[in-house]
Amino acid sequence: MTDPRIDAYASLLLDYCCEVRPGETVALHVATPATALARALVRGTLERDAIPALRLVYPEYAQDLVECAGEGFLTSDPALERFEVERADAWIGVSAPTNRRALQAADPAVLGRIEARSRPVREARVETTKWVGTLFPTDAGAQDAGMSLDAFTDFTFAAMHLNDPDPAAAWRALGARQERWIERFSRADVVRIESDGTDLTLRVGGRTWVNSDGKRNMPSGEIFTGPHEGSAEGVVTFDVPSFVAGREVRGVRLRFEGGEVTEASAEVGEDLLLERLRQDDGARRLGELGIGTNTEIDRPTGSTLFDEKIGGTVHLALGRSYPQTGGVNESAIHWDLVRDLRQGGTISLDGEVVQQDGVFRL
Amino acid sequence: MTDPRIDAYASLLLDYCCEVRPGETVALHVATPATALARALVRGTLERDAIPALRLVYPEYAQDLVECAGEGFLTSDPALERFEVERADAWIGVSAPTNRRALQAADPAVLGRIEARSRPVREARVETTKWVGTLFPTDAGAQDAGMSLDAFTDFTFAAMHLNDPDPAAAWRALGARQERWIERFSRADVVRIESDGTDLTLRVGGRTWVNSDGKRNMPSGEIFTGPHEGSAEGVVTFDVPSFVAGREVRGVRLRFEGGEVTEASAEVGEDLLLERLRQDDGARRLGELGIGTNTEIDRPTGSTLFDEKIGGTVHLALGRSYPQTGGVNESAIHWDLVRDLRQGGTISLDGEVVQQDGVFRL
Repeated sequence: MTDPRIDAYASLLLDYCCEVRPGETVALHVATPATALARALVRGTLERDAIPALRLVYPEYAQDLVECAGEGFLTSDPALERFEVERADAWIGVSAPTNRRALQAADPAVLGRIEARSRPVREARVETTKWVGTLFPTDAGAQDAGMSLDAFTDFTFAAMHLNDPDPAAAWRALGARQERWIERFSRADVVRIESDGTDLTLRVGGRTWVNSDGKRNMPSGEIFTGPHEGSAEGVVTFDVPSFVAGREVRGVRLRFEGGEVTEASAEVGEDLLLERLRQDDGARRLGELGIGTNTEIDRPTGSTLFDEKIGGTVHLALGRSYPQTGGVNESAIHWDLVRDLRQGGTISLDGEVVQQDGVFRL
Repeated sequence: MTDPRIDAYASLLLDYCCEVRPGETVALHVATPATALARALVRGTLERDAIPALRLVYPEYAQDLVECAGEGFLTSDPALERFEVERADAWIGVSAPTNRRALQAADPAVLGRIEARSRPVREARVETTKWVGTLFPTDAGAQDAGMSLDAFTDFTFAAMHLNDPDPAAAWRALGARQERWIERFSRADVVRIESDGTDLTLRVGGRTWVNSDGKRNMPSGEIFTGPHEGSAEGVVTFDVPSFVAGREVRGVRLRFEGGEVTEASAEVGEDLLLERLRQDDGARRLGELGIGTNTEIDRPTGSTLFDEKIGGTVHLALGRSYPQTGGVNESAIHWDLVRDLRQGGTISLDGEVVQQDGVFRL
């Protein structure tokens, strides 16, 4: 017997996130620990008279690529992957780690080349298909979240509104609330974030705020934009830890002048922070300002997909902007760092406080 | 720790069976219970500077297709699968059942339509790639073989010569022995098989005998041809049980006149036998005569891939011929049925006994 919420999960991904229609091809990229969900997705796709294209992958696959890939692989055209994305109408990606430190010792140069090889495929996917990425609860995820698997599963499914009688309706309701907040944010130019160790201003006038209502990330719950590249001024301290390919970075403090990082430190993982800032010019500028709105996600779990959505937090991404925001920062990286405002903090728009201690005042 | 024979297994499939070269794309279709082998194949492909295209599939996938596929799927063009086969230089298929009766209740009409949908892909694969199909040991396979998983694993790996210091050399040696037998068989016209309840003659003059030395089936060990379609005369009793989509057929007795089945009975599964004979005209004629030569496979295990290779058996296939034999029988089915000759039986060529009680006299 599988958890009945698995079927609700599959339905949410197929109907709400990807709006699968009869005759469409649905690419399903699923890590094997989520095989129960893969089955529900295959059956659900068929039941909608659509065509599943299943590609399960075992958890150590990325590790095997890093350790064994030669020039033949690294310089090869990802033709099969590209054809799949070009042919698919929808794409559902399900990660399900068994060990979130598995890439701890991976050579970053090789990791970068593997990522670069598949970048055109990722970009084509985002541009040409209806898509959603999600994270299936596993013991590895539960362990980093400091929970049992049962508790973490409940937490994850609550964050996706799968405990609601109509999960899609819950997401549409959040989308409508976010639409109202975006209406106010879209009229603003200067955003100021203040909290303990944090006083940062950014300019966002003319940029587009995106309503992330669960269509592309499941769970979601954020509004985000791309700030003007030269506008960041001040200091920000990130109090939610971040994991980069299994390595922890904690207590990051950044000073911005004229949009560029001019001072950087971290309590844990400072080497990695400085290494990432040196990646390229764009890595020292902000590509995204996001505001988490998912109040079911009430604590950090070590997974960015979840942590950046915590209701009452803001996140800033070093590196690449999302083009649909109007942001133009370019970089090989896009690294979200999260600041919790619930224990004291404000977001102001052109001098007006619109969020206090994590609660919107709109 | 994985069984060290897994790496030898992967090397045999990559180097001996598929002769993988740098820069080639290797499609890996692997059932998830064989994930340990999938890993070894991915790593091995990369280590040969080639490009793996991994597609794991969960064990219940076929069942989900049968139960849930609608017209959208059944009438769809298998474009993704076809592109993969057209693009791949080599193809390795690994089945690994968790329940060999899973399709017991499947609607044969739907099964047939699913098979028909993928037939062009299968045909393109066989024609355009270096390929091999193999069976990974699982508890389900062991259970049907009447063994523990450990014993069945030893049995399976012995049948593949993986216990040999140089498995490929062992296969080449069998290939050389088979070449000598084929030299004699190729000069023959009338083949007569005699045993308890069996006296059958076939004509094979001018047809090609294929040396199945482990390149396309692993394990292998057989020589086979396509007999003349109208030539079968006499009676044959098959004493090795056969499983068709999980349903058992045992004690099949067939009478042939002018190449066609004119009487048919079975101790178990006679309904299924008669149903299959009614499939189409070609299903009542023989498409293949094969002689098993793998002496490591010393008993039936319920899997045709193994049973038809038992050293000292012959098999006859109702239905489709393999074109490379010169056989021209056409049918939607190709159903191998096996007769053990070791407890008493002969194979004669134009009146000369060339095998007695399962032992070649050449």
